[in-house]
Amino acid sequence: MSELLVAGGQVLRPDLTVERADVLVDRDSGEVVAVDDPGALDGDETLDASDGLVVPGLVNAHTHVAMTLLRGYADDKELDAWLQEDIWPVEAELTGDDIEVGAELGLVEMIKSGTTALSDMYFHVDRIADAVERAGVRAVLGHTAVTVGKDDEAARADLQQSLDVAKELDGAADGRITTTFQPHSLTTVGEEYLRQFVPKARDADLSIHFHANETENEVDPIVDEHGVRPLEYADDLGLLTEDTYVAHGVHVDETEIELLAERGTGVAHCPASNMKLASGMAPVQRMRDAGVTVGIGTDGAASNNDLDAFDEVRDAAMIGKLAAADASAVPAEAVVEMVTRGSADLLGFDSGRVEAGANADLAVIDLDAPHLTPAHDLVSHLAYAVRGSDVRHTVCDGEVLMRDREVLTLDEAAVRERAEAHAQDLIDRAESGE
Amino acid sequence: MSELLVAGGQVLRPDLTVERADVLVDRDSGEVVAVDDPGALDGDETLDASDGLVVPGLVNAHTHVAMTLLRGYADDKELDAWLQEDIWPVEAELTGDDIEVGAELGLVEMIKSGTTALSDMYFHVDRIADAVERAGVRAVLGHTAVTVGKDDEAARADLQQSLDVAKELDGAADGRITTTFQPHSLTTVGEEYLRQFVPKARDADLSIHFHANETENEVDPIVDEHGVRPLEYADDLGLLTEDTYVAHGVHVDETEIELLAERGTGVAHCPASNMKLASGMAPVQRMRDAGVTVGIGTDGAASNNDLDAFDEVRDAAMIGKLAAADASAVPAEAVVEMVTRGSADLLGFDSGRVEAGANADLAVIDLDAPHLTPAHDLVSHLAYAVRGSDVRHTVCDGEVLMRDREVLTLDEAAVRERAEAHAQDLIDRAESGE
Repeated sequence: MSELLVAGGQVLRPDLTVERADVLVDRDSGEVVAVDDPGALDGDETLDASDGLVVPGLVNAHTHVAMTLLRGYADDKELDAWLQEDIWPVEAELTGDDIEVGAELGLVEMIKSGTTALSDMYFHVDRIADAVERAGVRAVLGHTAVTVGKDDEAARADLQQSLDVAKELDGAADGRITTTFQPHSLTTVGEEYLRQFVPKARDADLSIHFHANETENEVDPIVDEHGVRPLEYADDLGLLTEDTYVAHGVHVDETEIELLAERGTGVAHCPASNMKLASGMAPVQRMRDAGVTVGIGTDGAASNNDLDAFDEVRDAAMIGKLAAADASAVPAEAVVEMVTRGSADLLGFDSGRVEAGANADLAVIDLDAPHLTPAHDLVSHLAYAVRGSDVRHTVCDGEVLMRDREVLTLDEAAVRERAEAHAQDLIDRAESGE
Repeated sequence: MSELLVAGGQVLRPDLTVERADVLVDRDSGEVVAVDDPGALDGDETLDASDGLVVPGLVNAHTHVAMTLLRGYADDKELDAWLQEDIWPVEAELTGDDIEVGAELGLVEMIKSGTTALSDMYFHVDRIADAVERAGVRAVLGHTAVTVGKDDEAARADLQQSLDVAKELDGAADGRITTTFQPHSLTTVGEEYLRQFVPKARDADLSIHFHANETENEVDPIVDEHGVRPLEYADDLGLLTEDTYVAHGVHVDETEIELLAERGTGVAHCPASNMKLASGMAPVQRMRDAGVTVGIGTDGAASNNDLDAFDEVRDAAMIGKLAAADASAVPAEAVVEMVTRGSADLLGFDSGRVEAGANADLAVIDLDAPHLTPAHDLVSHLAYAVRGSDVRHTVCDGEVLMRDREVLTLDEAAVRERAEAHAQDLIDRAESGE
C-alpha cells in the first residue's frame, strides 16, 4: 500500500471547523485513510502543508472546459447575440484537436487553482476525456445535443450521440470519468425529441444535465407555448429527478424552487457568467432555504473569463447577497459548502470533504500571504480572500497533480504554447469564413 | 540622472491599445521620460518586462487601509448592524500603533497586487502617512470626522482635526502624500457643522472626500429632513465641486447624476463592498454616460475582503452589467480606464497612464500564465482574468517597490507577523471590553 501524508497544516473538516491535523491518503484506493493529530500518522511520501490549509479539492459543477480557447475573444455582449454572432460561428470551426488542446489548457488552469473535479458540457467528448485522463482530475462528461436548426435525422442523431457517449465513456480513466445525457436546454431541444430521448436516458440509468432558466429569453417562449414555467415543463418531460442537475437556474419562481426541492434536482450556480452576460441573479438563498442542493460552476472561460473556482465562490457570496437584498444571505459557510459538498453531490462523487473514506481530492492553500492575514476566520478567507494562485498543492484520487505550484501531470508551458497556436488558427479560420 | 528602463514587454498605452515598447523612467523626477520601440532606449538599470504587460499602477480611489486588521473578523452582516455591533466597537480600541501596522499590511498587499496610489479615510493619519512614506506609494490621506453621538465641543474638535491634518500632511513624503478634508458622510456629520466647516476647507483650498448615498438608509433620512435628495443637499452645502469626490454613489437618481456631472464631482465606485454589504448596485454606466468621472476603490478589507484592485476591476464590470441589465454596459475598456485614469483624476495625481511626462507609477503583469492564455485581447484580460498575483514588478514615483514578487520597501514577513499579533490583541481588548 502506497500512502501519501499531507502533513503540518490545518485541515478544513466536513463541519467547516478548522483544526491542526495530518491527512493520510491511500494512493491505491484514491481515498483518505485517516485524519489525525499532527505527527500521529506515517506515510511513504509527505506533502508539506505547513503554513497551509488542507481543503477539499473544489468541484466545478458546470463548465465548457475547451472554451478556454475563446477566453477574451468576445466580451461585453448579451447572451443571445454573443452566442449567435461570436461563439457559435467559432465553435463551428472547432476540431477534435482544438478541443483537446483547449481542455488541457482549462485543466491546467483548474489544477493550478485547486479544482479537482468538473462537470463539462461540450462535443468531441472523447478528446476531452483523453485530456481529463492525462490531467488526473475527476470529471462528469457528456455530448451536448441541440436540435433547433437541424433536420429530423440530424436532430435524432445528435441526441443518440449524447446517449451513446454517456454509455461509452462512463467509468473511463479508472472510474474518474462518469457521464450525463445532455440535452442542451429546454428551448434548443424540441419537445418531441425530449419526449423520445429522456425515457431512453432513464432506461439506461444515465444522469441528466441541461441548461435551464438562464435568461428570461429561455423562460418566456416556454410559458407562451406550454402555459407553464420551464421547470414545470421539464418535470412533465420526466427531466426532474435526483439524477438530474440543471445549470444556472437564474429565473426560477417559487413554484419551480419547490419543484426542484421536491424532486431532489440540484442546481449548478454560475455567478460570474450570470453577471458578465447580465443574465440576472439566481435566488440562491431561497433555493437553499427550500432544500435545493446548489453547487457552483464557472461556466466556460469565454463568459467568466477564468476557471478559478475561488473567484466563483466569492462571486456566489456577493451576488447571493445582492439577489436577496440581505448581507447575511449566502454567507461564507454556504459558499464554501456549495463549491465542495454541494457541487460534489450534483456530480455524484464522494468528494468535497476531507474525511476518512472520502475520495482523496484535496487542495493545500498557502496561508503565508498578506491578503490572508490576520487569521481571524479561515472559512471567511476561503470565501472572500483566497484566490486560485494561493493553492500550493493539488491532489486528486490520491495522486499529486500539482506540487509547489508545478503541475506534474501536464506540461504547462507546452499546453500554453499549443493552446495559443490553436486559438489563433481557429479565429483565423472562423473570421476568414473558411 | 538615474534612469530605469522597463524593457522587453508590451505596454498598455493611454488609448488602451497595446504595443511592444520599452519605458524609460527618470528616478529623480519620478516621471516617465519616454515610451519607444523595443531596444531604442537606454537606462542605468533594467526591469525585465519580457512576457509581460506594462500597465499604469492601479489607483484605489477609496479605502480604509488599516482595516486589514479586521479582515474576516465579521462578515455577512448588513452595513448598519455590521458597523455598530462589530466594526465600531473594535475601531474604538485601535491605537496609533495598530493603525500603522494595519496600514503596512494593506500597503504590502497593494504593492503585491499592482496598486501604486490610494485614497484613504481613517484616523491616526500621521501613522498612516509614516507607513505610506516607507512603502513608497502615493496617497491621498485625511482624518475622517464624525459628529453624531458627540457633544458640540468634541464634534467641532473632530472637524477641526480633519482640517488641521489635511493642512499639515499635504505634500508629505516628497509630495507623494496629498490630503482631503473628510466629513464622514451627510448623515454622520450634522448640518450646522457642515455649514461651518465646508467653507473653511474651501478657504484653505482643500479637496473634500466623503461617503454618499451608499445605502438607502443614508438617503431616506435626508429626503425626510430636507425634502431633497442627498446630493442636492450636499450641493446646497457647497460640497459638490471639481475638488470633491464621493465614495460609493450607489443610490443616486437622475437628478443627482446630472448634478455630479455639472459640478465635476467624481465618484469612487466600490463594487465589492456594495455587493458584500448588499448596499446595492451603483448605476455606473449611467454615470459615465452623463460625464461623471468614476474611479474604483476597494473600500476597507473588512468589507471586501482584500485590497486587490484587479478583483475590483472585474467586480465593477460584472455589477455594472447587472445594474444596467445590459451585458454591453461597463465593458472591459471602461473598467480599465476607471481604475487607472478615472481614479487618478479623482485623487489629483498625474498617474494612470504610461506616457512621457506622467508619473512613473507602473505595474508589470506576467502574461506567462494559463488563465491569461490565449492572448486574443489583453484589455479583456486586464478586466476579467488578471489577478493581483500576476503582478511581477511594481514601480511608484520612479522607484521599484516590488521586483519579481519581492517587496523591497517593507519587510513582508515582519509586517505580516506584527499585523497578526496586533489584530489578535485588538480583538482580545475589544471583546473583553477593556
